[in-house]
Amino acid sequence: MADEQGTVSFAMVGGDGPHSYRHNSSYQAGAVASAKALISNAIAEIFDVNHLTTSSGSIGIADLGCSVGPNTFITVKNIIDSVELKCQSHGFGSQVLEFQVFFNDHVSNDFNMLFKSLPNDRHYFAAGVPGSFHGRLFPKASLHFVNASYAIHWLSRVPKDVVDEQSPAWNKGRVYYTNAPNQVIKAYSAQFARDMDSFFEARAQELVSGGLMTLVIPCLPVGTAPSQSPIMAVADLLGDSLLDMANMGLVSEDKVDSFNLPSYNPTPQELENLIKRNGCFEIVKLEPSGRAPVTKETAPNIQMFMSHLRAAWGGLLVEHFGVEIMDDLFVRFTEKVADSSTLSPSSYRMMVELFVLLQRKAA
Amino acid sequence: MADEQGTVSFAMVGGDGPHSYRHNSSYQAGAVASAKALISNAIAEIFDVNHLTTSSGSIGIADLGCSVGPNTFITVKNIIDSVELKCQSHGFGSQVLEFQVFFNDHVSNDFNMLFKSLPNDRHYFAAGVPGSFHGRLFPKASLHFVNASYAIHWLSRVPKDVVDEQSPAWNKGRVYYTNAPNQVIKAYSAQFARDMDSFFEARAQELVSGGLMTLVIPCLPVGTAPSQSPIMAVADLLGDSLLDMANMGLVSEDKVDSFNLPSYNPTPQELENLIKRNGCFEIVKLEPSGRAPVTKETAPNIQMFMSHLRAAWGGLLVEHFGVEIMDDLFVRFTEKVADSSTLSPSSYRMMVELFVLLQRKAA
Repeated sequence: MADEQGTVSFAMVGGDGPHSYRHNSSYQAGAVASAKALISNAIAEIFDVNHLTTSSGSIGIADLGCSVGPNTFITVKNIIDSVELKCQSHGFGSQVLEFQVFFNDHVSNDFNMLFKSLPNDRHYFAAGVPGSFHGRLFPKASLHFVNASYAIHWLSRVPKDVVDEQSPAWNKGRVYYTNAPNQVIKAYSAQFARDMDSFFEARAQELVSGGLMTLVIPCLPVGTAPSQSPIMAVADLLGDSLLDMANMGLVSEDKVDSFNLPSYNPTPQELENLIKRNGCFEIVKLEPSGRAPVTKETAPNIQMFMSHLRAAWGGLLVEHFGVEIMDDLFVRFTEKVADSSTLSPSSYRMMVELFVLLQRKAA
Repeated sequence: MADEQGTVSFAMVGGDGPHSYRHNSSYQAGAVASAKALISNAIAEIFDVNHLTTSSGSIGIADLGCSVGPNTFITVKNIIDSVELKCQSHGFGSQVLEFQVFFNDHVSNDFNMLFKSLPNDRHYFAAGVPGSFHGRLFPKASLHFVNASYAIHWLSRVPKDVVDEQSPAWNKGRVYYTNAPNQVIKAYSAQFARDMDSFFEARAQELVSGGLMTLVIPCLPVGTAPSQSPIMAVADLLGDSLLDMANMGLVSEDKVDSFNLPSYNPTPQELENLIKRNGCFEIVKLEPSGRAPVTKETAPNIQMFMSHLRAAWGGLLVEHFGVEIMDDLFVRFTEKVADSSTLSPSSYRMMVELFVLLQRKAA
């Protein structure tokens, strides 16, 4: 959904159906599992229970870009278990400590489903917070821990120039920057930089001094071309499928030209520079999550991979093209992916899953 | 929706359709309007801006039983405008004050619709909180103002004895206590007392010392029989309509016998006693809201009244009887109401809309 300013607001596919994110998020679940130990260790090492649990009555936790679960519930439980463990080891009775968890995603996220799926045995007060994490969502200094897994690579909008016929960055005939001219890549990179400026500025205000933030984001290793990354190569095949349909008159060429995926995979260095430019956070860790690269044994089968993509991108595509063409589009798209070698285990080495641990400096 | 313990969890009819609460809540809107000045005055007179705005970074506000709007947005705006006004008159710059508003209702409430309807020009951070207000919903001492309009008369469950064939309080052949034996009325009253104990206990923990709570609740004047109240008499006509349908084989008699409306209208004295029994709140005001009794000119027309009832009770009825019988039921029910004199202006004098203003005592 794009407003007049071109800002996009979309969410993973809601509900409980076969194309829902709820039933198609096992790839992201792997990321959650691999981040688990990293988060636990971060809390054990640097979460300051003396300071953070006495300065306020309760611990505020936010999961940004939470979608509908179940991954968000696993992440949140891990954070709380780790804080409670640390409190116990420091002689605090964890029974007096209360947690308030804020589940955030776009307004169009299926919060009804999220709320219905909340674990009954949870040890926290739950709240849903609708809105873009590129702006302020919470009062000043109200959060102690913020997590965003597979979220900040989504841009707040398609870069303006990319859909401007007059611009040298006009991305005609493509839906992504994978094999695009340098100007297009620069437009995407500049949009990501602007979005991260807003993101870190907002979080810097919302986190208490000493509060922690963890990010998991798919990155491109320095020196790797976008086309070498499997997910980016796949995005190009989506563009090819749409162009085929335009050539057959099944969808208008203008529609295809005006569609671009609003997501960007920075290099680790690029993200590090943006964090430093903001200046409010200490970089405690910025390293590959350590998840094993996909091997022959663990390579996703194509149907499962495509189901994941449909859950993640389906909302955007339906918003732009209408629901009617979706089945046809995904049949063509799946064929192209199957015919390509983009999902071979070796291609996965061209992607890094970056784990970032930040601590809010004293304001 | 009743769980194994018989606890009910239901919400006003969601969505945007002709039977939705969103389009059928103008009666409650009248209550919101009449409470507006009372809330503004309460804040002007006793909201301690010095204490409450310096002890924490932001002001926490909760609207309990918020449904989907628009009434909740009007109430919240009034609270915030009043606090800002008071801050300005005390020389606080309101630009530094931040508000976090928690919209609460049952899990089955249509939060997606609520979030989509949030005013764009709001001056607060919004969060949705799913769950029963008969239990804890927020961390200790995290709220400064709590409101519940037309909410606390809903019970957490149908009183157990009322659906127990072995009990003297078994309410066979009725769906409410309007014309029921004393034992049934007592069972309802006892359930309300238990629910209010939990309610005040939870709020006492969640509100900061000096924090305010406003309640608007339809009450029965002392000495008035339930059958004299228009809404309770109407509930009996719902029971009659269901019995007619049972006699015609359109619904099973058992189904009708096991259905009871989980709501209770106390007398003002009864509510006052329960607040005192809890002991954590100063009763600042407990008085009729001052809304003019319905006159010949302002009496609701029957269709509008029935639409309101369907938005409020429809969810419960569908849950128990299924959606199939709803249109038929409401045709019969409407005929009975039209043939009765329950909606005459004079009958409205038998109902009091009580406005209660409470202040959390120092803990």
